[in-house]
Amino acid sequence: MTVPAAPSLVPTLPGAAYTDPGVFAREQERIFERSWTCVALAADLVAPGSFQAVTAGREPVVVVRGRDGRLRAFLNVCRHRGARVCDGTGQARRLQCPYHAWTYSLTGELIAAPNLAAMPDVGREEFGLRPVALREWLGYAWVSLAAQAPSFEDTVQADVVTRLGDLAAIERYGVADLALGKRISYDVPANWKLIVENFMECYHCATIHPELVGVLPEFAEGLAAQYFVGHGAAFAPDAAGFTVDGRAGFERLPGVTEEQDRRYYAITIRPQVFVNLVPDHVIVHRMTPLAPDRTLVDCDWLFAPGVTGVDASVELFHRVNEQDFAACARTQPGMSSRSYRDGGVLVPSEHHIGDFHRWVTDALA
Amino acid sequence: MTVPAAPSLVPTLPGAAYTDPGVFAREQERIFERSWTCVALAADLVAPGSFQAVTAGREPVVVVRGRDGRLRAFLNVCRHRGARVCDGTGQARRLQCPYHAWTYSLTGELIAAPNLAAMPDVGREEFGLRPVALREWLGYAWVSLAAQAPSFEDTVQADVVTRLGDLAAIERYGVADLALGKRISYDVPANWKLIVENFMECYHCATIHPELVGVLPEFAEGLAAQYFVGHGAAFAPDAAGFTVDGRAGFERLPGVTEEQDRRYYAITIRPQVFVNLVPDHVIVHRMTPLAPDRTLVDCDWLFAPGVTGVDASVELFHRVNEQDFAACARTQPGMSSRSYRDGGVLVPSEHHIGDFHRWVTDALA
Amino acid sequence: MTVPAAPSLVPTLPGAAYTDPGVFAREQERIFERSWTCVALAADLVAPGSFQAVTAGREPVVVVRGRDGRLRAFLNVCRHRGARVCDGTGQARRLQCPYHAWTYSLTGELIAAPNLAAMPDVGREEFGLRPVALREWLGYAWVSLAAQAPSFEDTVQADVVTRLGDLAAIERYGVADLALGKRISYDVPANWKLIVENFMECYHCATIHPELVGVLPEFAEGLAAQYFVGHGAAFAPDAAGFTVDGRAGFERLPGVTEEQDRRYYAITIRPQVFVNLVPDHVIVHRMTPLAPDRTLVDCDWLFAPGVTGVDASVELFHRVNEQDFAACARTQPGMSSRSYRDGGVLVPSEHHIGDFHRWVTDALA
Repeated sequence: MTVPAAPSLVPTLPGAAYTDPGVFAREQERIFERSWTCVALAADLVAPGSFQAVTAGREPVVVVRGRDGRLRAFLNVCRHRGARVCDGTGQARRLQCPYHAWTYSLTGELIAAPNLAAMPDVGREEFGLRPVALREWLGYAWVSLAAQAPSFEDTVQADVVTRLGDLAAIERYGVADLALGKRISYDVPANWKLIVENFMECYHCATIHPELVGVLPEFAEGLAAQYFVGHGAAFAPDAAGFTVDGRAGFERLPGVTEEQDRRYYAITIRPQVFVNLVPDHVIVHRMTPLAPDRTLVDCDWLFAPGVTGVDASVELFHRVNEQDFAACARTQPGMSSRSYRDGGVLVPSEHHIGDFHRWVTDALA
Repeated sequence: MTVPAAPSLVPTLPGAAYTDPGVFAREQERIFERSWTCVALAADLVAPGSFQAVTAGREPVVVVRGRDGRLRAFLNVCRHRGARVCDGTGQARRLQCPYHAWTYSLTGELIAAPNLAAMPDVGREEFGLRPVALREWLGYAWVSLAAQAPSFEDTVQADVVTRLGDLAAIERYGVADLALGKRISYDVPANWKLIVENFMECYHCATIHPELVGVLPEFAEGLAAQYFVGHGAAFAPDAAGFTVDGRAGFERLPGVTEEQDRRYYAITIRPQVFVNLVPDHVIVHRMTPLAPDRTLVDCDWLFAPGVTGVDASVELFHRVNEQDFAACARTQPGMSSRSYRDGGVLVPSEHHIGDFHRWVTDALA
Repeated sequence: MTVPAAPSLVPTLPGAAYTDPGVFAREQERIFERSWTCVALAADLVAPGSFQAVTAGREPVVVVRGRDGRLRAFLNVCRHRGARVCDGTGQARRLQCPYHAWTYSLTGELIAAPNLAAMPDVGREEFGLRPVALREWLGYAWVSLAAQAPSFEDTVQADVVTRLGDLAAIERYGVADLALGKRISYDVPANWKLIVENFMECYHCATIHPELVGVLPEFAEGLAAQYFVGHGAAFAPDAAGFTVDGRAGFERLPGVTEEQDRRYYAITIRPQVFVNLVPDHVIVHRMTPLAPDRTLVDCDWLFAPGVTGVDASVELFHRVNEQDFAACARTQPGMSSRSYRDGGVLVPSEHHIGDFHRWVTDALA
């Protein structure tokens, strides 16, 4: 005789969580405009005056490197009449709005404007660009639009610790010193939470990821690497590297330990980042939700500086991305169906997705 | 002296009935997701395991032929995480979701899934695809999403009886034994009710349908065939067939009677089917409302098996369709005008459209 | 010691005024569907029976020249079943709906319809096209959809008087006798009020209008011509004409005075017309708001009849238009930002825009 087992299936969120514009607006307000979100690759912003126009939540933001070497972020909206101050990526000594030439320093103060001398009551700080909290970590700029930014350690870094056991494990990859080998942007017709859920489980791996399972055979069993704290999925004995055909990749990154070698680690940093660690490169996904049923995913492949011939490495996870996003796209329409009104179910190897659902639900409450 | 005549003009529905998203949602819920709607040609689903993914109301549905030869319909949504199970048209021994490989029999039971053996508490029927009521008639699959499907006899078939006098009249055409000669899909920028109203009256025939009036001269008088129970419009003496230029068509279908020969019968089956009967072929329109101002119309031309050279037959009603849908498209914008706030008017030969308006109004009440 | 100066900066409207669909709907109802709006060039409608289908507010309207030479306007919606009666521009003896051939006179009465003789209770006036108030002035047709049209003198003409001091100043240009040299339509992704505000101030001229400032050097100081009653901006001494490169234009229009010569006058006629007067031509902008973030602008360049070789004249303001509309487009997204929740600020040379904001606010109250 055995004690009654826990039920095999536990419920997901209801369908409306993936389709309702009101839910999406609350997610933007309470999740994406409060949490730390990863918005730019620091290596794209090396020189003083380098800037990049990005989106955080629903807000236009500009990230800029100061003369002191620090990254800062501001709402990318002129304080005069609201025009966008900076476009795309560039470099400038000052940030000048192209409409009426209101001009801001790299630290955001209003420093010039036509006839400003005749307006002595206009405060240079009072009418500076509105600042946004910024942290630089893992080679990326992370911003928070919250009035009081949450603790970076208790959120972003805690998600890494929860997954890997400690921060040292990720720091050994020296991500901030890597160079961008490839960036691919995916416009996915699915809710951002479907993409998170997909990344968190490997129950689908045997069905849709033949190349990935070829390199990581334990994924055929349906348990995601991130299901166990500290666990990395072992490469197949016959896989020389984390490549689309198992051919050799590159030298192990300098800090990576023997235990980390020939293993794949996946980390979900809520709400919008996935980090994938393999011995010779790092893959970072960043999501930007555009609508309840549309999410932009920017995927960076980072390698040791000077490395060339990255195609076979990039191709492996590019295929995984295309397979995953196709699955999410075919799931989105079902979210509106009466069949999914009360949601679907999670099998045992997906039960940890329930934690993510609770996190979302709590954030919106 | 005469007694006062009934007024020549009676009111239509108000303009908002054709533009309001709330009305459209109620129509989907109370009309298209309760009534029997015609969603697939049975001849496209002959072999056991043949399936077709379709839309009924706002729901994704899959129609599938069982090993017992019976057609069945299910919500096309996996019970696990909500992915679309079947795409397009195909044939399969089992219905397998391409995301996590949950697998259903042709009768809908969950019969396999990765690790299912380790989940003994998961009921095969409890987690089967959700069934949808289906009837096969006139060579088409008709489905109802209602919790309790309405009587097929009192709705679909009653509309035919109301028009033709009895069911035998339509059964003589042997529609289920005909073969698809041509299918054309029309994406019409107009509310579905404008398309129904257009089909129900012939007051516009003299203005916009020169080819049709050439073959059916009585249509020039503005009275639709469906205005009189049992009446079919007679072909012009010089029309050898129901073709764009009056050339001969094909042999009379075997069951068609002498009284039905050289006549055209039009039948509106609410809410979304039009059937057009002529001696040598049958034309079936099926509508799928996509938005208050957009409707997809699939039109099938059905002929005796083996017939070839159908172009002149198809071209006649294809032109009628294009003429009608252009008229509906130019009517849709006026529905938003203050001029149509209280609706327009029906002339005497259109008064029977008022019955349709009452039917819609009652259904939404 | 000095007395405290007025503050340099005064607030604009809040961001939601430029993005909220509810505000936009109220603007349509209370501004664009009540005010006089300019919808057609009279020179496009010279012969009796000439007609043009246009949009006023959200309404389809047809403007038609009667046999008596008068322009009239009607809702372009058939009284029978709501189809659009007239398309585009054309000429006709009667206005016939292409759906069921209901036919209206050029003065709007229902004069014919199939079987109309059998419907003696149908009133010819009662079922005529619904009339819209129309005034012809400055060579344009202006319409008002108000139940009771406002005084043309107290609104349209008063805006001209406020700017120029009297009506005689504009009448000297003989605008109604000019001929269309060029029309360019711009589809601008910005709220209509951003376009008005842009036109009303010249604080941006030095930044974005190098060609215009080349011809009108005082614009470099940031004060718009329309800032001072009766003031016209003087041409640069080395500018031979109001052309993109300062080359000579054409002969002064016959009525233009010495004081008006070599000067540019800009007039904003609320809510949707800008008139630009220079000695040898007149530029008229007409706006049609399509959505909170989208506005169609039709710009006409009018010259003395018979003039040829207008390219250098047209090119100057075409560049100004493109520069202005690009600025408006880059401003629109900022309207949704939290940075603009309470609006931006107007500098002293923009303070008169506050009057426009008050006018809008009062109109919606």
